[in-house]
Amino acid sequence: MKHVDTVIHADWIITADLNNTVHQAHSVAIDAGTIQAILPAEQMSQHYRGRKEHDLKGHAVMPGLINGHTHVPMNLFRGFADDLPLMTWLQDHIWPAEAKWVSAEFVEVGSRLAFAEMIRGGVTTCNDMYFFPEVTAKVANDIGFRAGVGMTIIDFPSSWAENIDMYFEKGMALHEAFKESPLIHVTLAPHAPYTVSETPLLRVKELSETLQLPINIHLQETAAEVDDFLDLHSVRPLQHLNKLGLLTPSLIAIHMTQLTDGEIELLAENDVSIIHCPESNLKLASGFCPVHKLLQQNINVGLGTDGAASNNDLDMFGEMRTAALLSKGLVGDPASLPAETTLRMATINNAKAMGIDAITGSLETGKAADLISIDLHSIETLPLYDPVAQIVYSVGRDRVTNVWVAGQMLLKDRQLTTLSETDLCEAVTMWQSRIKS
Amino acid sequence: MKHVDTVIHADWIITADLNNTVHQAHSVAIDAGTIQAILPAEQMSQHYRGRKEHDLKGHAVMPGLINGHTHVPMNLFRGFADDLPLMTWLQDHIWPAEAKWVSAEFVEVGSRLAFAEMIRGGVTTCNDMYFFPEVTAKVANDIGFRAGVGMTIIDFPSSWAENIDMYFEKGMALHEAFKESPLIHVTLAPHAPYTVSETPLLRVKELSETLQLPINIHLQETAAEVDDFLDLHSVRPLQHLNKLGLLTPSLIAIHMTQLTDGEIELLAENDVSIIHCPESNLKLASGFCPVHKLLQQNINVGLGTDGAASNNDLDMFGEMRTAALLSKGLVGDPASLPAETTLRMATINNAKAMGIDAITGSLETGKAADLISIDLHSIETLPLYDPVAQIVYSVGRDRVTNVWVAGQMLLKDRQLTTLSETDLCEAVTMWQSRIKS
Repeated sequence: MKHVDTVIHADWIITADLNNTVHQAHSVAIDAGTIQAILPAEQMSQHYRGRKEHDLKGHAVMPGLINGHTHVPMNLFRGFADDLPLMTWLQDHIWPAEAKWVSAEFVEVGSRLAFAEMIRGGVTTCNDMYFFPEVTAKVANDIGFRAGVGMTIIDFPSSWAENIDMYFEKGMALHEAFKESPLIHVTLAPHAPYTVSETPLLRVKELSETLQLPINIHLQETAAEVDDFLDLHSVRPLQHLNKLGLLTPSLIAIHMTQLTDGEIELLAENDVSIIHCPESNLKLASGFCPVHKLLQQNINVGLGTDGAASNNDLDMFGEMRTAALLSKGLVGDPASLPAETTLRMATINNAKAMGIDAITGSLETGKAADLISIDLHSIETLPLYDPVAQIVYSVGRDRVTNVWVAGQMLLKDRQLTTLSETDLCEAVTMWQSRIKS
Repeated sequence: MKHVDTVIHADWIITADLNNTVHQAHSVAIDAGTIQAILPAEQMSQHYRGRKEHDLKGHAVMPGLINGHTHVPMNLFRGFADDLPLMTWLQDHIWPAEAKWVSAEFVEVGSRLAFAEMIRGGVTTCNDMYFFPEVTAKVANDIGFRAGVGMTIIDFPSSWAENIDMYFEKGMALHEAFKESPLIHVTLAPHAPYTVSETPLLRVKELSETLQLPINIHLQETAAEVDDFLDLHSVRPLQHLNKLGLLTPSLIAIHMTQLTDGEIELLAENDVSIIHCPESNLKLASGFCPVHKLLQQNINVGLGTDGAASNNDLDMFGEMRTAALLSKGLVGDPASLPAETTLRMATINNAKAMGIDAITGSLETGKAADLISIDLHSIETLPLYDPVAQIVYSVGRDRVTNVWVAGQMLLKDRQLTTLSETDLCEAVTMWQSRIKS
């Protein structure tokens, strides 16, 4: 009999492993933050005993969801400006508000709010990019949340950095501070080809190679972006990155609503990962990422919410549902983007994009214990014929009961364990009053 | 001082009246099932006292959502067959399952499940069509839910009726039984032009005129339906109904994903109402209802989930969100279908379609007290800049705390008052086992 930290018994264990294995009446043993074994419940009780045991009848246990693209501090701008044309939204509302309000304190409260929202919604990891990333990284680390945190690079000054050298300097300090952290995965995050010029992009490339870091970049998000870039540079943004040698397996291209068939081939040849953000793309009327074609070319496609200012939530259950439904509608085929594939996009595909698929993204022995439990015995989720389809098409994030990151329980019976909900709501309400005034 | 049944105080009262009035720090007085007054909180406490008073800090109160198109008994087929081409889904799964399982008992349990789900999700009224409608009507009436219940008419025999005469006979009995009911609104529900021939359609028209009943019909749901109809009848389904004189303000045309500009004019001229079912249309890849164009022509457009077999929930918050996001994406304009309009589609527009807008669909003195409260003070719904946008873009149905229909509280602090959740889950699980086997 082996004694371990935690044993979880559940009616279904959805692994998101290579075969999309779904075990019935199995158990997961966790020790020192790592998955030790996944066994039939009877075998488990013969071989493992948990110092904590969770008997989750009617529950499914699955890998924690990964939010492939976020700007977590922007949670404080949730619902700040809706139903506006993109440029009005950005130029008249979001950018002035950012210029006025974004500070270390803003980022600290916004990050807490976003992590709290994501934990309550079954998300265990996000892939973030924003100003003051060292604050976001510290908050994530303190509360036990796994986060990719981007070294933001942009040509323009901000309250965080005055010039391009400062962005790199502060970014490198972020990397230094967290390079040994098991929870914080620093990435390079040049904002977009239209906001980061050639020299810094080449430096990003070099740093990515030297430090083995992934590169997050907003890419071909709107038709206007592509047209404007073409006018200025006589080349589309993706081709520009190609010329600079940035199309590699380290590249995480976010949005990609504007893609020619030739560009899709180019992405496939260079093993670039794409993050699809369907709700943000819909809300800002940015266009449609051709997920179906990308998957047909075996391109790794993950899924993200984008920031709460353009979504307006960080709900990955909702995002899976929207992704699956939208693809069916656009392709004209109800078999396009089935539930199983959608679940992979929100878990292992995102981990692969971030270069952390050896650590997280699926439930397999030896991986970090990043997992969640979902109560499927409810008015909203009965009857139950297929747990994976139910999770994608019927489950609301309020059905998430428990969340573990690296074996630590961050949500227990729907209560946050490392954050005070009351204090957080109070801090957010204070920021709301300030911003509203 | 006037004594009334109930007084509700809330931070926001969203009325969905003609001016889309949103009151702050107001109260609603309810007596004998009817809204008596909406006043500033201070004035209310000077003039009205409730035998029950609800002080809902941080809450919004709004009209109960109306689900404009349902097949409630099909809740027992939730997730029964997903990710399949439409005809495989219908012919190999849904129709055989219906032939095998649909009975009065099936309809009774499925209806209970659907009403429970809708009440917990802030829906106070639905507009249903299915077999054994007298069973659905009785369940709704017993639990205090407001329902449009369709006299289903279809050329083919079913477990409910052997032939077309029987459909009319049973339908008329339904109408007789519930014509005095304040909660049950019987409608005519010929299934679709391709499943109901000319003679019964003309009889439906006559009954609609004589009895002043609305007519629900699935119409131009898919391109294939239109093409097949054209092949057989040399006319599109909508034109067919026009020739029969069915295009009147009593007509509720459901789906309408295939529409020419000329047809939109025809709908506008005849004051036909449309029910948009975006999630079902996406999931079955049926096409896109041109909501933006319809609204531009001042056509009354409501919103519905369709049955749980093709959605897979009866979540009207999710449906509002999908409708708003999808329209922006398709039209290419983030200002298309703003939150305020979307909320009207899910409330007063549906009431108007059903011909019950004098009774429900907005919070106005003299109307039935069909209303819900939503707790907006939460991690998921802060900060709060605009309650209407928050409700459409960020609120999950789990934030609904209380639900009243005609003044009766059907949900109290998220607990159902007229249905037992435990008994219901048990009954549904039994049906699940049967259907699965």
